[in-house]
Amino acid sequence: MPRVTNRLGDGGSSADQVAVRRHNLSLVMNHLRLHGSRSRARLAAETGLNKATVSSLVAELVSRSLVMEGATERGAVGRPGLVMEIDPTTYVAVGAEVNIDYISVLVMNLRGEAVDERRVALDTSHMKPTMVLRRLAKVVDAVLEPLMTRGTVPVGLTLAVPGLTDNEAGIVHDAPNLGWHGQPVVEQMRHYLGQLTLPVHLDNEANLAALAELDARGDTAPGELLLLTGAVGVGGGIVTGGRLLRGARGFAGELGHMQVDVDGKECRCGRRGCWETVVGLNALLDLAASADDPVRDPSVDVVQRLGELRRRAEAGDERTLHAIDQVADWMVRGCGTLVNLFNPEVLVLGGYFAVLGPWFSARLAEGLEDQVFAPDGGGVQVELSTLGFSSAVRGGALRATHAVLDDPTIAPLRSETDQLGDPS
Amino acid sequence: MPRVTNRLGDGGSSADQVAVRRHNLSLVMNHLRLHGSRSRARLAAETGLNKATVSSLVAELVSRSLVMEGATERGAVGRPGLVMEIDPTTYVAVGAEVNIDYISVLVMNLRGEAVDERRVALDTSHMKPTMVLRRLAKVVDAVLEPLMTRGTVPVGLTLAVPGLTDNEAGIVHDAPNLGWHGQPVVEQMRHYLGQLTLPVHLDNEANLAALAELDARGDTAPGELLLLTGAVGVGGGIVTGGRLLRGARGFAGELGHMQVDVDGKECRCGRRGCWETVVGLNALLDLAASADDPVRDPSVDVVQRLGELRRRAEAGDERTLHAIDQVADWMVRGCGTLVNLFNPEVLVLGGYFAVLGPWFSARLAEGLEDQVFAPDGGGVQVELSTLGFSSAVRGGALRATHAVLDDPTIAPLRSETDQLGDPS
Repeated sequence: MPRVTNRLGDGGSSADQVAVRRHNLSLVMNHLRLHGSRSRARLAAETGLNKATVSSLVAELVSRSLVMEGATERGAVGRPGLVMEIDPTTYVAVGAEVNIDYISVLVMNLRGEAVDERRVALDTSHMKPTMVLRRLAKVVDAVLEPLMTRGTVPVGLTLAVPGLTDNEAGIVHDAPNLGWHGQPVVEQMRHYLGQLTLPVHLDNEANLAALAELDARGDTAPGELLLLTGAVGVGGGIVTGGRLLRGARGFAGELGHMQVDVDGKECRCGRRGCWETVVGLNALLDLAASADDPVRDPSVDVVQRLGELRRRAEAGDERTLHAIDQVADWMVRGCGTLVNLFNPEVLVLGGYFAVLGPWFSARLAEGLEDQVFAPDGGGVQVELSTLGFSSAVRGGALRATHAVLDDPTIAPLRSETDQLGDPS
Repeated sequence: MPRVTNRLGDGGSSADQVAVRRHNLSLVMNHLRLHGSRSRARLAAETGLNKATVSSLVAELVSRSLVMEGATERGAVGRPGLVMEIDPTTYVAVGAEVNIDYISVLVMNLRGEAVDERRVALDTSHMKPTMVLRRLAKVVDAVLEPLMTRGTVPVGLTLAVPGLTDNEAGIVHDAPNLGWHGQPVVEQMRHYLGQLTLPVHLDNEANLAALAELDARGDTAPGELLLLTGAVGVGGGIVTGGRLLRGARGFAGELGHMQVDVDGKECRCGRRGCWETVVGLNALLDLAASADDPVRDPSVDVVQRLGELRRRAEAGDERTLHAIDQVADWMVRGCGTLVNLFNPEVLVLGGYFAVLGPWFSARLAEGLEDQVFAPDGGGVQVELSTLGFSSAVRGGALRATHAVLDDPTIAPLRSETDQLGDPS
C-alpha cells in the first residue's frame, strides 16, 4: 500500500513534496481539461484542495504557460470571479497516421481541440516504408511550421500504424496491409523530422482511435466499449474497466484476423478466412465496383470515394446496396462473436463502417439480437463514430498531450525560458 | 481521491478508525492466506504495520477464531518465535456446481485447502431444475453435517452454473445445455438448504474456475490468463489486468458460442456453428464412441469415462486418436481467434481438455504459431489445469471465503459467541 501522507506534502520529505506538488499540478490541469474553465474557488471545491494551494498551483501553471485567465464565470453566485482555463496556444501535440490509402496529421492543443489537420491520399502499400515516413514527416513539418513561427511548441508526436506494434521499441512488427515487417518507424520518423526534435512514440491505430472515442465521450464514457476501425484492414480498440485491453505483449485486439470462414479468401496476413477479408473496405469495393470505377482509385481521398458510395446507396443503386448487404451479413456474425466475448456496453463503428453507418447499424442492431447468446445482445448499443477518419490521429495527439497533462513541470517556467531564450 | 490519512487511523473520526481497523484485520488475514504462517514480527515487517498494531490485530483475529498459534518458525534468526497461522477448522466455505453430467460440492477452509469434496454423476439436463437443486442441497448437507457437529461454521456458498448468470439477482438467465431459462436458483437453493442458513451467491462456472486457476498460481499468477473449461459446454474465464473480464452486464466470456462454422451443426443455444458444437465433450464422444459405448453413459462419473478414453488414446486406438485429432483442429482455430483478441500470457486448458491434454497441448502449441497474427503466438503458453473438474467448485468456495477474508469482523468474538451460545 502506498504511503499517502497528505496531499499537500507538508511534513513529508523534500522528494515527497516535489512528487505531491507535481501530482497536484496534474490534478488541476486534468480537471480543467476534462471539465472546462472554472474559478479558483470552484477548482478548490471540486478537487478538495485548499484555496491557498489552488492559487499557488494555478500561479505556477500560468507561469508555465499552461493555464491562462479566461472570461468571467457565468452564472456564478455572488460577485463574478475570474475563471482559469487551459492555454490553447503555447503547446500542441501531434498525431500522425500511416494507413493503406492515406497518411494523415492532426495537431491538437492542450484543450483537446484540433488546431489543424491534413490527410493526403497516398498508395502507401506500393511504396517503400521510408518513403512513406519521409512524406509523413514533410506533412508534419508543413502543419507545424506556421504554428511554431508564432511561438507554439510541440510537446510530442504519436505515430499510428495499422498493425502489430512494439511501442517500447518503436518498431512495427507486422502490418500486412502495408507490407511492413520489423520497421523501426520511430527511429526513422525522428530522422526524417530532422531539426524538428520532439518525443516520438508509436501505437496501434485502433488503440489510439479507441482513446479518442473515450475522450470524445468525456465523463459519460462507458467502461466497456468496443471500437471497430473499418478501413482496408479492420482493427479493434477494446476498452474494459475504462482502460485499453492490451494483452500480455500489447498484441490484443487483432479482431480483423478472427477466422470466420474456414474455407474463405486468403488474407494479406497469409491465413485464410480472416474477418477483414469479408468486411474490410476492399471486400466491399470488390462487390460494389468494377476495377476501373473511380471509387477504387487510391489517389482519390478515401472520404470522397466513400461519399460517392454513400450517394449511390442513398439513390438506391442495386449493386451498392447488395454489396453493403453482403458485408453486413459478415458484420453481424463477427460482431456477434465479439459481443459474446466482451459484452460491451457500446459498440462503436468507425472508419468506413461509420460513413455507411445508416445501413450497417440497422442490420447490426437487429442481427445481434439473434447472434448474441445473452438476452438483448447483452444490452449492447451500436453507435457510429463521429470522428470519421480522424480518430487515430486524434488519439495519437491525445496520447502525446498526456506527457504535459500528467507532468506539467516538463513545461518550462517563464523565467527559465527567458534565460534560455527558447521556449522548447 | 480518497482521503487516506494514516493507516492506523489514530486522529481520524471514530467511523474512520473502525474502517481502518477492519482494513488492517483483512490485510493480516490475506497476508497469512497468501504467504502462509509467520511470526508477528515478520507480519509487521512485511505489511508495514507497526509491531504493537500487529499484536493487537492478531489478538483480535485469534479471539474471532480466524487465526491460531502454529509451530515454531523455522530458520528464523535469533530466538525462535511463535508463528501465527490461519485457523483451518472453525470456518469453512462451500462451492456447489451444477453441470451437464454431474453435480459437485467442495468444502474449503480459510487456508484455501479442500476439506471435503463430492461429485455425483447426474443427468441434470433431463431433470427439473428444482429436482437438481434439491439433490445438490442434500449433498451440501451431507458434506457439512459432520463438520458442523464438530463446531465448524460455514460462512457462505457459491453456486456455479454453466450459463449466463445474473449474480446480483441470483438468477440463471440461460443455461442451454441444462435447459435452464430464468431460474431463480439462489432463492431455490436457500429453500432446499432449509435449516442450514448461510449466504448463497451465484456465478458462472468458468469465471469461478478462472478464480481457482489464479489462486492456484498464487504470487506468480499472470495478469493475462485465459481459461477454457471443456465439458459438454465450453466456457471461458478471461483474466486481464489480474481481474476477471465480466463485461457491461456480466455476460462476457461466452466463447463456446463464437461462430466458427457458418454452415455448422446446430447448437443447444439455437444458433449454428458455435465453437462448442465442434470442441465440446459431446462433439468428441460423437466421433470417438458409438451410442451404446459406456464412455457415453451419463450415469458413470465423467472422470472415469474420460480415464477410459485416455487409456484408449494411450493404447493407440485409431478411432479415439482420430476423434481427438479432429477436435484439436477446431481447438486450434478457435484458440487462434481468442489469442488474436486477448493476447494472453497463459492459455489454460481445463476440464476434459486437461484430461486429454497431452494430445491437445502439443497440437495447440504448434497450431497457434500459424494461426495467431502476432509472432510466436504472442508469446502464449499453453498449460493444463491441475484442478480437474474441481476448478469451479474450488473457485466458488474461494469466492465464499472472501466474505471473511475481506471483513474478518463478521466472525464473532469468542466473548460474543459465549454469550450467544452459538458460533454462527
